[in-house]
Formats: sequence, C-alpha cells, structure tokens
Amino acid sequence: MKRLNWLILILHISVVSLFADEGMYPLPMIDGLRLQEKGLHLTNETVYNPGNTSLINAVVRVNGCTGSFVSDQGLIITNHHCAFRAANLASDAEHDYIRDGFLADSRAREIPARGYTVRITESYRDVSAEVLDGLDAITAPLERQKALEKRIKTLTARAEEAHPGKRAEIAEMFKGEQYVLFIYTFLKDIRLVYIPPRAIGEFGGDIDNYEWPRHTGDFSFLRAYVAPNGQPAEYAPENVPYRPAVHLRVNPEGVNENDFVFILGYPGRSYRNRGSAFLNFEEKAHLPQRLAWYQWMIATMEKISADDRGVALKHLSRIKSLANLEKRYRGRLQGMNRLDLTARRRGEETAIREKWPETAPLFKALDSLYAARAQRQPLAFWMERLRSDVHALYWAGRVIGAARERAKPDLERESAYMERNWKRTRQAALRRTENFYMPTDKAMLAEILRRLYQLPDVKNYSTLRELEQDIRRSGSMENFVDHLYAHSRIYQRDVLDKMLESDSSMVAASQDAFIRLRWQLEPVIRALREQNRLDGGALSRLQPLYNQARKKWLKHNFIPDANGTLRLTYGHIRGSHPADAVYLAPMTALQGILEKYTGQAPFNAPEALLTAIDKHNSGVFYNPAIQSVPVCILYDCDTIGGNSGSPVMDANGRLIGVNFDRAFEGTINDYAYSTRYSRSIAVDIRYVLWILRYVAGADTLLKEMGIH
Amino acid sequence: MKRLNWLILILHISVVSLFADEGMYPLPMIDGLRLQEKGLHLTNETVYNPGNTSLINAVVRVNGCTGSFVSDQGLIITNHHCAFRAANLASDAEHDYIRDGFLADSRAREIPARGYTVRITESYRDVSAEVLDGLDAITAPLERQKALEKRIKTLTARAEEAHPGKRAEIAEMFKGEQYVLFIYTFLKDIRLVYIPPRAIGEFGGDIDNYEWPRHTGDFSFLRAYVAPNGQPAEYAPENVPYRPAVHLRVNPEGVNENDFVFILGYPGRSYRNRGSAFLNFEEKAHLPQRLAWYQWMIATMEKISADDRGVALKHLSRIKSLANLEKRYRGRLQGMNRLDLTARRRGEETAIREKWPETAPLFKALDSLYAARAQRQPLAFWMERLRSDVHALYWAGRVIGAARERAKPDLERESAYMERNWKRTRQAALRRTENFYMPTDKAMLAEILRRLYQLPDVKNYSTLRELEQDIRRSGSMENFVDHLYAHSRIYQRDVLDKMLESDSSMVAASQDAFIRLRWQLEPVIRALREQNRLDGGALSRLQPLYNQARKKWLKHNFIPDANGTLRLTYGHIRGSHPADAVYLAPMTALQGILEKYTGQAPFNAPEALLTAIDKHNSGVFYNPAIQSVPVCILYDCDTIGGNSGSPVMDANGRLIGVNFDRAFEGTINDYAYSTRYSRSIAVDIRYVLWILRYVAGADTLLKEMGIH
Repeated sequence: MKRLNWLILILHISVVSLFADEGMYPLPMIDGLRLQEKGLHLTNETVYNPGNTSLINAVVRVNGCTGSFVSDQGLIITNHHCAFRAANLASDAEHDYIRDGFLADSRAREIPARGYTVRITESYRDVSAEVLDGLDAITAPLERQKALEKRIKTLTARAEEAHPGKRAEIAEMFKGEQYVLFIYTFLKDIRLVYIPPRAIGEFGGDIDNYEWPRHTGDFSFLRAYVAPNGQPAEYAPENVPYRPAVHLRVNPEGVNENDFVFILGYPGRSYRNRGSAFLNFEEKAHLPQRLAWYQWMIATMEKISADDRGVALKHLSRIKSLANLEKRYRGRLQGMNRLDLTARRRGEETAIREKWPETAPLFKALDSLYAARAQRQPLAFWMERLRSDVHALYWAGRVIGAARERAKPDLERESAYMERNWKRTRQAALRRTENFYMPTDKAMLAEILRRLYQLPDVKNYSTLRELEQDIRRSGSMENFVDHLYAHSRIYQRDVLDKMLESDSSMVAASQDAFIRLRWQLEPVIRALREQNRLDGGALSRLQPLYNQARKKWLKHNFIPDANGTLRLTYGHIRGSHPADAVYLAPMTALQGILEKYTGQAPFNAPEALLTAIDKHNSGVFYNPAIQSVPVCILYDCDTIGGNSGSPVMDANGRLIGVNFDRAFEGTINDYAYSTRYSRSIAVDIRYVLWILRYVAGADTLLKEMGIH
Repeated sequence: MKRLNWLILILHISVVSLFADEGMYPLPMIDGLRLQEKGLHLTNETVYNPGNTSLINAVVRVNGCTGSFVSDQGLIITNHHCAFRAANLASDAEHDYIRDGFLADSRAREIPARGYTVRITESYRDVSAEVLDGLDAITAPLERQKALEKRIKTLTARAEEAHPGKRAEIAEMFKGEQYVLFIYTFLKDIRLVYIPPRAIGEFGGDIDNYEWPRHTGDFSFLRAYVAPNGQPAEYAPENVPYRPAVHLRVNPEGVNENDFVFILGYPGRSYRNRGSAFLNFEEKAHLPQRLAWYQWMIATMEKISADDRGVALKHLSRIKSLANLEKRYRGRLQGMNRLDLTARRRGEETAIREKWPETAPLFKALDSLYAARAQRQPLAFWMERLRSDVHALYWAGRVIGAARERAKPDLERESAYMERNWKRTRQAALRRTENFYMPTDKAMLAEILRRLYQLPDVKNYSTLRELEQDIRRSGSMENFVDHLYAHSRIYQRDVLDKMLESDSSMVAASQDAFIRLRWQLEPVIRALREQNRLDGGALSRLQPLYNQARKKWLKHNFIPDANGTLRLTYGHIRGSHPADAVYLAPMTALQGILEKYTGQAPFNAPEALLTAIDKHNSGVFYNPAIQSVPVCILYDCDTIGGNSGSPVMDANGRLIGVNFDRAFEGTINDYAYSTRYSRSIAVDIRYVLWILRYVAGADTLLKEMGIH
C-alpha cells in the first residue's frame, strides 16, 4: 500500500486543481448543476422541460445504442457499429455494404433495417411510493425481494394497459429507495440511409479499441418512418418519415480544446455508490477470475483456429467480443488498483463508523454478506460459465426454461420468457447455432468441469457428486464429454427450433444428453439463484441505510448509478496525461490516418478516403489549431457502455460529435470517475460532414442537415 | 505513393523549421560544426586536441559498449547491460548479484570482471594513401577486393609490430576512399564496482525495449587497474587503479528541456551514404525477409517452450535477443516507409543524372549490381540461415574453417581464425552448447531446407540437387533431419572442443553427419562468398564515384558512415511527437516507476527503491520542472548501436546521462537521421546519483566523483 501514497497525492492534487466533472445526472437534477457557470449558453429549460419539448426529445434509443434526430425528417445519427447489423442483413452476394458502405441516393432507396427499433421517451414519473409501499413489513430477505420483483412487474403491466401501444419500464434509481416509471414509444420502421465502408467506420479495429489517439469514422445515418397517420407501424412502402418534435442542429465549425461540451444518452450500469465490501469483492474475486477466464477462452479458440481459415471464421466474432470484454475488465482492474478505490472507500467508512458508532452493524452486515458471497463465488462462477459459455448447456437451459416458464401466467414468468421478451430470447438462442463448432464447445465444457471439480464445495451438492461419478465412470473427462455430444442434436438449428416449443412433459421425457445434464444441474443452479435473490433482498434494505450514512458524512447528495435511463453529463474537450511523460492531445487529424495506414485491415482505408485526404484537407471543416480536419475528439465527460452513439453538444446545444468509446484508462468509469483518467471519445462532426462531402458525395444529406 | 505526399510535406516542414542535428562526426570534423553557436560553452580544443589531452581521452570502449572515466582512480561508468556478464560470472549459489545488485564496500572487494577489457585510443592517422596505393590498376573486382583486404591486414600487422603491446585497427571511413589507422591500448584488469539490482537496471525489460517513456536504471560502475608500473596487465592483487589522463566531471544538477547536449561514443555501422539501389534492396528484399524469419523463429521457439519451464529456460536468451532484433528491424522498415527514403534518394539521383548525363553509367551499374543481388538474395539468405541458425551446421562450419584456416600463415587466414581472434571465436562456439535443445535445432533445419527448396535457383548447384535426392530418399524431411542428428555428436561440448582442434585430414575423414553435410554445402557457400567479394570489389570503385557525384550535387561534404570509431554527436533535450496527437515529454519521473510497477518482472522493483521514492523525492537531485527526480532523458542526438554506455554531456562537458537506447522510431537512424523521429535515451545522472545515495548507500563512490 505504502507505495501508493505518492500516486494518491498526485491524484488528489489533480482532483482539486481541475474541474471535477463527475456525473451521469438524471435530468431532474439539472437545476442543481449551475451549468451556465460551467459554460452552457442555454437555459436549463432548453435542455430539459418536462411536459414540454426540449433537447432531450431529440435523443432516442436505437436498439442498444443512443441516437439523435438531426433533421425534421426523422434522420438519425448514431454509430457505425450500431447500424452494422442492418447493413450486414441488407448485404447479399452482389452488394457488400459492410465492405463498400452504403448511401441511399433517394428516400425510396433507403433500406429497411430489419429488427431495428427507435425508442422515444414519452413521459416518466417517480413511482417509489407505489413500488415500496408495505415492503418494509417483510423482513425475510428472500420474500422481500420476490415481493419487490412482483410489484415492479405488476406496475409495469398496469402502465402498459393504460398506454396502449407503448412500453412501460420501471428503473431502479437507488436500490430500495427510488423507482421511476418510464413510458416509451417504439418506432418500428427504421431504414438505413448511410453507412461508411468498414475501413472507415472500424478503422483501427480491435487494436485501437479503447485507445486514444483514435481515427475511427464510427458514425452512420438511419431514418425513422411512421404510418401516414403518424402512428408507429411496421415497415410499409407508404410509410412517411417521422417528424420529431425536436432535432439537433449541426455545428460544422465544431469545437476546440477546453471548450464546454455535454452529452445526453443512456448509460447502462455503474457501481459508484456501493460500499468497500462490494469493491473489494469486485477487485479481489470477481474481476480477476473473469479476466483470467476470458484470457483462457481467447487463447483456446485461437489455438483451435490456428491452422484452418474456415474454423477461424466461426470464432472471429466471439473472440472479438471476448477481447473487447477482456480489455475492459483489464482496464477496470488497473483503474481500481491505480486509484486505490477499495482502500479509499474503506477509509471513508471507517471515519463514518468512528463518528457514528451506531452504523457499525450496517458495515458488519455488508462485510459478512460479501464475505459469504466471495466464499460462494468460485462455485457460482463456474456454474454460470457452464450455463453461458457451453452452447449446448445454454440451449438446454433455454429449452427447459421455456417449457417451465411459458406454462405460467405471463406476469409470473422469468423476464426472458415473458411475451414481451420471448421473441428476442428465442432468436438469440437460434443465432448461436450459426457459428457452432463442436470441438470448441467440448473444450469449454471439459475445462469448466475440471475447474469446478477443484472446488471443495462441490461436495455439498449431491447432484454434483453424482456427476463426478459419471465422469469417473467414463474413464476420462474427454470420454465423458464426447459421449454427451454423441447423444445430443441440440446444436442443430431445426432440432433446437422444435425443442424450444416443447412442453414440460416432452422436455422431461427428452433423451437428449444435454437436456438431461441440465436437469441434473438444475438443483444447484436453483439454489445459487435463490441465494442471489436472498442477497438482493438483504441489499435492498442495507444499501439505502448505507447511502443515508454516506450522504450525511459527505454532506451532499449523490447521483444515482447509471441504469439505462436518460442522463446528462458535461465536461470539456481535454487532453490526457495517462502516464508519466505522456501527453495526448484531444483532437486527431487526417494525417494520423495516413500514419496508421498499412493497407491491411484494421489499418486499411478506401482509395477514395486517401485521395480525399490528399486533395481536400481544407475548407470549412479545417481546424487551424491542428492544421487539419479533426477526425476524433477526447473529453472528460462521464460516460459508460450504453452511451454509444450519444450526441456530443457544444455550449449552444449544437451537435459537434458522436460518442463511441472511452480511453483505456476510462474503463474505470464503471466504478469511479477520475479527473485524470476518465476520458471519452467521439467522432468529430467535422469528419462526419467531410466524409459525406468528399468521400461519399452525399450532398443531399448535408443539405437536409442545413450544411451548404 | 500519392498518399505519402502529405506526410512528406509535414516532415519537410519540420526538417526545415527545427535544428537539423544530424551527424555522427569523426572528431577531425569538429572545427566545421560551429558548436559554440549551437550551445557549447567549451572550446573545440577542450573536446578534441590531437596530440594532447582532451575530453575524448575520458571515453573508452568496454567490450562492445562505450564507457567513460569519472574519477582519477580509473572509475568507469557504463550501462547495466554492459556489466551484466561480469556480475553474472561473479555470482554463485550464495551470491546472486544479478538479482540483488552488487556494491564493493572497499577497493579490495571489487570483483574481477572476467573477460572484460577497456580500450583506450592512443593515436590515429589517415592511411588512405597507403591502403589504396596502386589499387586502381586492378580492374577485376574480385582481385581488387582481395588486394584491399590483404593490404589492410598487412598495414595492421606492421603497425602492431611498431607498437608492441598495442592493438592496431584500420577503419574504412568512406569505402574505397578514406581509411584511418587507430592504435589502441587494452587495459585487462577490470573490476566490478557497482551494479544495481536487475529490477532497477532492467526495469521494463523487453516490453520497454526501444520504448519511451522509459524508467530503466541502465548504469553500472567498473574500475580499470594496471600493474604498479602503470602498464596494462592481467588481474593481479597488487595492481593499482589506472590514472586516466582526463576524466569527466559529473553535474548533479543535470539538464532541462531544450538544453544543449553532446555525446562521444563508438557507434557501430550506419548506411546513410548508400544509393537508392541499396535502400531499395534493403526495404524490399533484405529487411522484410529477415523480419519474417525472426518472427517465425520466435513463434516456433515459443511453441516448443510452451508447456515446459525447463525447455523454456533454454530458449529465453535466444528469444530475447531475437525479439530485440525483430523490433529493431520492424522499426527500420517502418521508418524507411514513413520517410519514403528510397523514393527520395532516387529522386535526388534522377536530378543528378539529368544535370550530369555522364553519371548515367554509374547509376546503371549500381542498379544492376543490386538487381543481381536481389535475385541471388533468397538463396544467399537461406544458406546464411543454415550456417548461423542451425547450431549443428554452425559448429561444423567452425570445425572445418579452423582446420583449413589455421593451417595457413596468420595473415592469410579469415579474420575469425587469426590468432588475435581465435580464442573469442572458439569460446563463442563452445558457449552455444550450453542451451542447445535438439528439437529446436531440428525444427530450424527442416524449415530452412523446406524454404530453400522452394527456390528455382537451387537447381543451378549440383550439390544442392544431390542433397535434394538425399532428402527424398529419406522418405520425409523429418526422417532426413532425424537421421542427421542420430549420426552426430557435435552438439556435445567435449566432442566439439576436441573437433575444433582437428587438422584437415581428421576433418576430411570425420563420419559426423554435420561435418559431412557442411562439406557437401561448401561449394555453394564458397560460390556465394566469392560473389559477395566481387560485389565488394565493384562497390569499392562505384561508391567513391557515387559520393563524388552526390557531394557535387548537394554542394557540401557529408559525414562518413559509422564504423565503430570514435564519433561526436550533438543535439538538445527534446520531446517527441511520434504520432498524431501524441506528445512525449523528454524527462521521466520517479512516480512513473510506481505507475508501471506491478510487482512482477519486468515491472518489479526492490523494496528499497519503493521506500526511497516515498521518502526522498527531493533534495539536490529534484527537478522542479517535473516535480520529481528525473529518471531518464530523451534527446535528438544521432546515435546507433554501439553508442550504449556513451556519456551524455552538457554545454560545459560535464556528465549528465549515460546513453543506452533509442526510441522505436529512432531505429531508422541506421539509414537516415530524422528531426521528427530520431530520439535517443539515457539514464539521467540525477537518477544514478540518487540511487547511489538513497538505495545503494554508496556515499564513497559519490565522494570519489566529487558529489557531497
């Protein structure tokens, strides 16, 4: 620890000497932020005006991403990676829109983005009282948790009845304290307007992922359509462009270093308000185990893929997404370590306990809850890996779950099997058959079982003891695994498709080896799940007490953790000192593309881009400060996953960038904001417009956005 | 090419707008450099004063490194990696000086550095006339080359006769134009005084190799002893410290950004003055092939090492040195590409040819020489790999070479077998047996043969055709290779030791499979070697003509390529913009060690260092500009391999750092100096002194250097 004093001192200095722009603020908090003092030239009402229109009406959710309207004709800007699937599905043997990009040269040529929806926030209200009413009377943690879940489902269903055609969702702002009901409209006819070639939209690929300086053109354009009567409708040729209440103006002059910027978007999930017991659990148990396992999976799949291009192709996207996770977890762990987060939070708690000794039982309860969890963690982890990383067992779980849950009334089902989610759950399961490669699945299963059986607590479960006997009887782990796959067809798409329709008796009678294995594991899985709900119930009582004690100590309120609801974060265009003697400027330039260019993916570039850089590094999109057209920008706003595609706006609320990533050190944002390390990355609007003009020749789109 | 216009423009601007500090100048050129205008506060005579004492008398060669005297008691400062072998040989089961470092607490405790010599330059004179006299009359290139080699050997031998106990060497300053005879004294009793623990001296290890920012304490202290009568002598307890004519004063206050610095040292070999034909050959044929082969060898050895720690240990140092080469070659190739070197030199040559059409035959001759060389290159390359990367064939080559050459009069032998070099040649061969691992040697041999036999020109050599038959008859490459190793014992140290003493008839009669294979390959090797000498002879005529034409065009003289002789280079402490949006400051800080620290090699650090950083980041070694004690510095002097250990001096000629590496982009220095990319790295003298005081407790050493 001692050796960290120094670092902490440094960090402390930088925290107090610079603006502390922490915060993914729910919009109702905007009046407390004094944004005008920080640099905003707009009134708060221009940004957020409940019951009326404001900038937030321009910001929407596009599947898992954020997007924003940039014209009164339903034109939406979001990330390249958010439109990737639409372009992929639209491609065929003759049209490779991923490789070549796509520009609709007229409205009629815009391509339906299959499976895409755009979610617009209609209204929201605090429903904490209704959610929590009478819950305090239930002291048994498990019962309490079940009651809470049921209450949320019921209120959601009731709201959807009251708003036909809309979707209701209740978001937990503070565990056990604050709940907000959101009413959303879903637009269902979304079309692809423009996507750049992959070599622009993914320039730098996995190598540059989470890296700054960046030169990625990670943007695309979609358009939302509605029925001629203005109502949401599935795709139909006669549909008309949706007319949003508000759209963002584009600022072709962009911003400069130190300029004020802010972001509206839908950050996913953060853990800023948890206690040191949780942080310690994450740092010591959860993150290292997950990281090591991701590394093992990647190495194993690379080994299996090494000598066969066809096999490698089957693993490409899984390795890619694991590599992304691996890097993110590595970054988080590095960040926790560098900021010494756990020890600092523990120090705060010690001070609280010393000042108010009556809080001691609270901290003791949290400590023992997480100590117990850490004890259970290895078994829970490997059981979770079995269920999710072994495709055959994952499918078996879905088949059994469907048969069991879908026999219940909708409201009583587990979320994945409720009518509103079932279609998506099913499609996800079927999609996994596409790149199934049996030797990989076998290797995962064998390795997980091997690691599982190194744990002493497997002995506590009779069903795991029996399974161990089975393995032993097979002579070797390999034999056992081979035998399973020889007696299953669950990995065949048509077989699986039929199985997902089975009822309980059919599933119970199934001779498929993985259905039977999954049955065998069910008691352990159920026991662990109950235990989790028990923890959830206990936490829904402890966390509010913890928050109250901490607020009293810090003498100010704090911001609810991100939970997928609309948030505002502000900051400045700002470079970064990620390491001793290293300074990274906050704006990259066209010539940086040439410096990285190798002619090979991920550093390839279309000829049209190279030519344009040679010819058109000038004009309205040129920034004298960097003697080039800016490509990407860096800023100290507070973002996490889910902010992809979020609009970055200047002091006047004009669009100047599209957020798409964080710098590696910024992955710590999930646990804490750091003035030194928290940096997010957007594609600069000048690069977007420059590409449209000089590479894509999309003058119509420019005109639609008011750029001449 | 087009896409590079931009980059070139940028580079051009930076070249003309900043100081162009190119140059590894031979000291006689010092008067033309106007160093006082650049920032030097000394007279040229203080630096270089032929026939008298000056700073250069303090600079010596320590085996392959440079070192400098820093006290009147023969104390020498050089790099950690230059003293590594001495500390390694001095270690035993009870003393691990590599891990723990070593400090002699009195003169008597200094440890003999076995195999170390310190070379002092006694005098030098231009012998071009004697070397070249009458050579023009010989027009046949091969004869000319042989005559040149013979002439150099003869003059060297004559000079050594005239200076008993000294060593003479003739350095080629400009091929076919200028030759200088150096007379050296060798001190032979060298002792280890201080070496820091490996975790300081190699902090960052291979990962940080060629990287900036750097935090490596790459320094050590040795002491030179002589006989009581002042003459060079082998180790003897009664020997006394050598009293150098001049030693460097140490400046404990160091330097700051933009300060003038200069370096004296022995850079190895550069290729600045070659034509575009040569550069093209390097870029297109030589470098890529070598790079790909290094990568293959590393990957293969890593695969072989993967599951066995013992096997891995045998490959560690070979992989390490290959990884170093791989990175250097990768850097060179990237640099040639970024600077577009070949095309720029070709452009210059085109202009020369247009202005003076009479030079056309010269360029044509160079082009066709390198075209022919490129054609022969693959065969030559794989034959060279056979001889050097397959240990068994390398040893066989040494055995055959020794038998043949050592039968000749000394002056007529190939250099490696002359009496002055034979001991070293022999030891190097025997040392290779230590980490011999047969499966690796087999894998190398099989792969090289496979690649060799893909070349069409193997058919031109009857002996290679026969060998192909042998392989075919074996049924498979693996059988062929296995059979060879089953019928050889050359890899056993004692067998090899005896073989190296064999005479020609014994070697001719040997039944060892590798001796016989090497015999079989001999005609091809000899043919290729003759071809090389033929090229050398042709170049010794063409290169002077090329230099003359280029000088006439550039209207100024240029600097001879580095050739292991003493050179001066000057520049400034200067940060680096190696890539778009990246700025690296020229000075690293103690806290950077903490940032990189992981507790695991190569980012481990002794507890004493961590404690000292916590306690002593202050005092005389503290630099307010970086709010810390500087660890390493970066500057734009012009260095290459061989400059390791060179003193970096301030405007007053005081020692402020010890050079030990270049930044990755600086590996281009072998072919060209670049204002943007050429940066070298030293350990800052303040870190050296701070370590001595607060980590090593070596106050006696500090006092000896005049630091109180």
